[in-house]
Amino acid sequence: MGPEASPRDRMVEAAVILLAKHGYQAMSFTTVLERSGAPRGSIYHHFPQGKDQLVAAAVELAGERAVAMLDAHAGRPAGEVLDAFVRLWRAVLEYSSYGAGCSVLAVAVSADSADLLARAASVFTSWRDRLAELLVLGGVTPVVAPAVATTIVAATEGAVVLCRAQRRMTPLDDVAGRLHVLLEAST
Amino acid sequence: MGPEASPRDRMVEAAVILLAKHGYQAMSFTTVLERSGAPRGSIYHHFPQGKDQLVAAAVELAGERAVAMLDAHAGRPAGEVLDAFVRLWRAVLEYSSYGAGCSVLAVAVSADSADLLARAASVFTSWRDRLAELLVLGGVTPVVAPAVATTIVAATEGAVVLCRAQRRMTPLDDVAGRLHVLLEAST
Repeated sequence: MGPEASPRDRMVEAAVILLAKHGYQAMSFTTVLERSGAPRGSIYHHFPQGKDQLVAAAVELAGERAVAMLDAHAGRPAGEVLDAFVRLWRAVLEYSSYGAGCSVLAVAVSADSADLLARAASVFTSWRDRLAELLVLGGVTPVVAPAVATTIVAATEGAVVLCRAQRRMTPLDDVAGRLHVLLEAST
Repeated sequence: MGPEASPRDRMVEAAVILLAKHGYQAMSFTTVLERSGAPRGSIYHHFPQGKDQLVAAAVELAGERAVAMLDAHAGRPAGEVLDAFVRLWRAVLEYSSYGAGCSVLAVAVSADSADLLARAASVFTSWRDRLAELLVLGGVTPVVAPAVATTIVAATEGAVVLCRAQRRMTPLDDVAGRLHVLLEAST
């Protein structure tokens, strides 16, 4: 995101990162303004309904980004689609020195609002659905593709938590290897 | 836990549940005292170092419980060991009406303290290690057992987050089915 981004976009971007680093409760408008450099007036102008409106926008952005990244691999073999999804999470862990995980998972784990939980659920489902489509295009048997896609989302999300806690990439590497074995058994 | 449990044990038990329901930030001594019925003086008597000392005890308890549950299935086929681990999480989701997840994951995702992260990491590793041992006893090829065990921990932890957000058991059911396929490919 360049310096020409709008205050709203910069706030949403900052919210994604702060959620991924510190979780829902620790994210506040104050920390978002500090990180984004957006003027304080942006809060009430862009997010008149408060913090949860910003969190909802952040969850949506994180969801759309992963789908767009997956779309770039449409038509590739299933193993490459899996590798692309895993690479996304590896990058989050590496660039943050294991300080960040998945912003959508953070909201799903610690937000009490039913609306935010439903939005997080919707993102997970969108990843599952797009992964399943791409896996079928990439050679996975259609009848098992949705369950395989759910397993990829669940296992990578869980592995990111393990990597962050252990401050090393081994869990994600191990999980990626076993998910390849699962793909081979699903074609 | 019966009414004869000590105030300390009741507090740790309440902390496990509150962490699993609301995460690290939302858990406080006040909510733990309310839920456990322990006298306020128990805080400074049993946890003089504060909230994180209680959270550490809760993470340890949750970790030991899952290992003890797994131990009851030592020597059984690998598929039964997997089913036992999945059943543990299914019970958490069912008994809480999708209101709770994994207390250890909640700490790993939202605690900022390096000590608590390391304790959560240590619990995940203890589950992985014990699962790997039992998988080998149950027929899984030793060289792949640790990676398969990591995948079981990561995928079930991730699936619990998905189930809780979606308020249905389908993700865990789908993941359990695919993990059985992985086990079959690992023996």
